[in-house]
Amino acid sequence: MTASDHRAPAPRTSAGKRDRLVAAASEIVYRQGAAVSTLADIAAAADVPLGNVYYYFKTKEEIIAAVVQAHAEQLTAGVAALERRHRSPKTRLKALVEVLAERRDEIARYGCPYGSLSAELSKRGAGTDAAAVSLLQVPLEWAERQFRAMGRRDAHDLAVELVAGYQGAAVVASALGRPELMSRAARRLKKWIEALDG
Amino acid sequence: MTASDHRAPAPRTSAGKRDRLVAAASEIVYRQGAAVSTLADIAAAADVPLGNVYYYFKTKEEIIAAVVQAHAEQLTAGVAALERRHRSPKTRLKALVEVLAERRDEIARYGCPYGSLSAELSKRGAGTDAAAVSLLQVPLEWAERQFRAMGRRDAHDLAVELVAGYQGAAVVASALGRPELMSRAARRLKKWIEALDG
Repeated sequence: MTASDHRAPAPRTSAGKRDRLVAAASEIVYRQGAAVSTLADIAAAADVPLGNVYYYFKTKEEIIAAVVQAHAEQLTAGVAALERRHRSPKTRLKALVEVLAERRDEIARYGCPYGSLSAELSKRGAGTDAAAVSLLQVPLEWAERQFRAMGRRDAHDLAVELVAGYQGAAVVASALGRPELMSRAARRLKKWIEALDG
Repeated sequence: MTASDHRAPAPRTSAGKRDRLVAAASEIVYRQGAAVSTLADIAAAADVPLGNVYYYFKTKEEIIAAVVQAHAEQLTAGVAALERRHRSPKTRLKALVEVLAERRDEIARYGCPYGSLSAELSKRGAGTDAAAVSLLQVPLEWAERQFRAMGRRDAHDLAVELVAGYQGAAVVASALGRPELMSRAARRLKKWIEALDG
């Protein structure tokens, strides 16, 4: 990110600029938290003049909403890819845990990108912020479908337990700055999935 | 909290004012997050003139540090009380889970007061913020001592698993605004403790 770079930006399409702004916002919000991030920070990181930002996003809330939507789309595409790659629900669930654990280093620095933003937004919305709900809903619903395909009638509870297991490990790993806690949690969760009947 | 109340405050000791400021900051930071909370909000909630606040705290960072210290003291006093009330380490650990689950309604609105502040601070400090570490360290070290007293050589890992289990449930419960998820997680954690050898 070349925040202090004053070269004239190369001509780009409007969609390109919007995408760059959302990508920069995503990164900055992840590293600093949504409340601390400013439109000026985001504009500088995306190499878009601040005046132009308002063409795409009137307020910081609008750009945060776009970040949440981009996260939800990434998550949806990610679980769809796992579903294509693996046939059995158990293998898919273990692959999800594996993918998440690969991000252990950044998680130990900044927490889970989805969980930490969700926590910040749900605080603001006092537990019912639609954006916060939708962020964790993608992995929750997907995991529930896999557990159901395993014939588990407690699929919903198992999905909550899986997502909570991962989120809790992320909170502790980031508080203590210890990536190996994510790896350990991933091993434990994969064993737990493996041992389930179905 | 009577933020807009303009009566002259009754004479109070200096320690009283400082305590009121920390208590108000604690509440506001819990509900809004540390980044959003301002010294002016805190002063108004504590019914202390803003000019007086600077006598106790020069910056918001100083008052946040005092909130973290107050939380750590509450946690330390809380686990010490559990230790006096219950003899066996297993009963103590289950009692800790019970105490946390009693706060399910506020947790489903604002998350865990310790975990959510820890997550926000560790993001800022990129995983090594001393204050964030100390907040989760109190329950982690206490739980580890209990597991060790049960003769468990994996006491440290078990303590991490217990605290992560609770924190993960808090993240999901607050994202979805569902207090019953805390109760369910508490039942699961108590069963898990009960089933451990030792």
